Amino acid sequence: MTEPTAPALDLSLDSVALTAAVCDFPSVSGDEAALADAIVAALDGLDHLEIIRDGDTVVARTNLGRERRVVIAGHIDTVPINANLPTRYETEDGVRYLWGRGTVDMKGGLAVQLKLAAELTDPVVDITWMWYDHEEVSADLNGLGRLAANRPDLFAGDFAILGEPSNGQVEGGCNGNVRVELRAYGTRAHSARAWVGDNAIHKVAPILERLAAYEPQTVEVEGLDYRESLSAVGISGGIAGNVIPDEAMVHVNYRFAPSKSVADALDHLNELFPEYECTVVDRAEGARPGLDDPLAQQFVAAVGAEPRPKYGWTDVARFSALGIPAVNFGPGDPLKAHADDERVDVRQITHCEASLRAWLTGAA
Amino acid sequence: MTEPTAPALDLSLDSVALTAAVCDFPSVSGDEAALADAIVAALDGLDHLEIIRDGDTVVARTNLGRERRVVIAGHIDTVPINANLPTRYETEDGVRYLWGRGTVDMKGGLAVQLKLAAELTDPVVDITWMWYDHEEVSADLNGLGRLAANRPDLFAGDFAILGEPSNGQVEGGCNGNVRVELRAYGTRAHSARAWVGDNAIHKVAPILERLAAYEPQTVEVEGLDYRESLSAVGISGGIAGNVIPDEAMVHVNYRFAPSKSVADALDHLNELFPEYECTVVDRAEGARPGLDDPLAQQFVAAVGAEPRPKYGWTDVARFSALGIPAVNFGPGDPLKAHADDERVDVRQITHCEASLRAWLTGAA
Repeated sequence: MTEPTAPALDLSLDSVALTAAVCDFPSVSGDEAALADAIVAALDGLDHLEIIRDGDTVVARTNLGRERRVVIAGHIDTVPINANLPTRYETEDGVRYLWGRGTVDMKGGLAVQLKLAAELTDPVVDITWMWYDHEEVSADLNGLGRLAANRPDLFAGDFAILGEPSNGQVEGGCNGNVRVELRAYGTRAHSARAWVGDNAIHKVAPILERLAAYEPQTVEVEGLDYRESLSAVGISGGIAGNVIPDEAMVHVNYRFAPSKSVADALDHLNELFPEYECTVVDRAEGARPGLDDPLAQQFVAAVGAEPRPKYGWTDVARFSALGIPAVNFGPGDPLKAHADDERVDVRQITHCEASLRAWLTGAA
Repeated sequence: MTEPTAPALDLSLDSVALTAAVCDFPSVSGDEAALADAIVAALDGLDHLEIIRDGDTVVARTNLGRERRVVIAGHIDTVPINANLPTRYETEDGVRYLWGRGTVDMKGGLAVQLKLAAELTDPVVDITWMWYDHEEVSADLNGLGRLAANRPDLFAGDFAILGEPSNGQVEGGCNGNVRVELRAYGTRAHSARAWVGDNAIHKVAPILERLAAYEPQTVEVEGLDYRESLSAVGISGGIAGNVIPDEAMVHVNYRFAPSKSVADALDHLNELFPEYECTVVDRAEGARPGLDDPLAQQFVAAVGAEPRPKYGWTDVARFSALGIPAVNFGPGDPLKAHADDERVDVRQITHCEASLRAWLTGAA
């Protein structure tokens, strides 16, 4: 007899109870192995699924010879726990919430996907389920990115759904994201003789003025309104209390509509701040919503809501870059993601499960 | 026979050679004991001097019953050595320099004082020589401040000369100095939804605009023109590349003419930046030049130059606060103080020695 090495996941639980069980299985980024093991163990022996493992990413797919294939993906890691596990239920204003790390981002969506993967033996489309590691950390560690490099063949598909929290609504595409460091230089001097030097901090005043006065655009892309933003997310400068500083830096984040490329975004920043040294420290293309695809339209109809734009960058952009239309669809309010009081309205979990089940079985 | 525990200082060397010897006796702040020991040893047995030691501060005074008493002081510590010891001589454009840490700030002045202390057995005024520790570090460690607390009686005097580098000119008084941290607050949010938050960095734009546009005053005090300055010496803000920051801080340094008090200076800052939280992190009153005193006028005449204002705050302000007119007078260009290429035109050392000797012996 072999000792069990990890607690089992019981996929026959209802999706809310399964969400609690998955949350109570901690899997902070870098520490996903036990949860990935449990997922593989829970799916073991299901004849309708082919299981592929890459590191702590688990792929499960049907091979039913359907005309179309849908990729349904979600990450299995969370940001660090901050005294917000184990989960608990709480009721406020008549609404029942499941509280705790991961309930929103995104173990509710993950639980729905795991349950449907096990139960949907005969879906109307072929499905490639992808549950991946390292989403909450540096992009170069991202399990989905690694899988795309190792096994690009697994990304064959006509439409993709990412289970990121979207209040159970369909959020299409995502804004692009660039971050730059703008620098000004001067000359050091003793601050008792400031006129001998040239103050680099004073020189960044126009950057802050322009940021404070900037009116971000809202750009319509394929029927969705993408609200942009341009923000200082950091500023630094200074040597000592008696020294005129010779360098100052403003760290600027531009979130831009998916009709624009990273190159367009950088051009815009160069137009706004032509006189500063500009170092690009992060760049990610946005993703068009892709809602003109017939499969996407069927899905939106099945979910029964007006699609909305996604502002935050998500891994839908990886699918978009591969030419696969992709949307976000999962339970939980994104404003509660990463919050210490992260909690999900449990009705959103059951709604997501029911909508997805209906669409995948042709009932909707 | 006892082993010598520290190299001896030979005060019969000429003042340039003695400067080199004192510089080659490292005494970075906190590590002045060996030099203080050597000073005490070098003066030992001189009948015209009473020696008092307080920590690593050495006081040597004459008690000749003269009508007037002059305090002549200098610090014995330096800022850290940066591969600029031992000293060496170098010649550029026909000028001979002594190069190395301390040559400017202020072991040239110290060497002149030590030599004259030993040699002037019959000065026309009584002299209290003070050589003190910990000038180059936090004000609460300053040896002169400690001595004023422990032995206020030693500060009796009609005029004070501090050997800080002043190019061998008389620099009167000093500007006052305040530093404040100005803060703005906002609300954190994910930078993908910047409009949910309130960006604190954007809110400090007006501080930098006002600093960049500010035109510092030049204020005449007792015939000397004190040039003021107002500078950002530091700036900080930012949580992470994807977070709208809820706090930003600008560290501002105001150097103000000695006709103004610290309270006046803070009022001015509050007028300039009324909408920000203001935390005072450093405050030091300036010192009026005090050149209307007859002893000061005699001294200026003996040195034979137009007195100038001192911009940097120095310990003359401690004497000024005690009601003793005080000036800076020492060899070395203050712009080279603390520099890695610190070096002194050796003619300034001999000039300072000769001027001070002439005045103290009644020859000038």
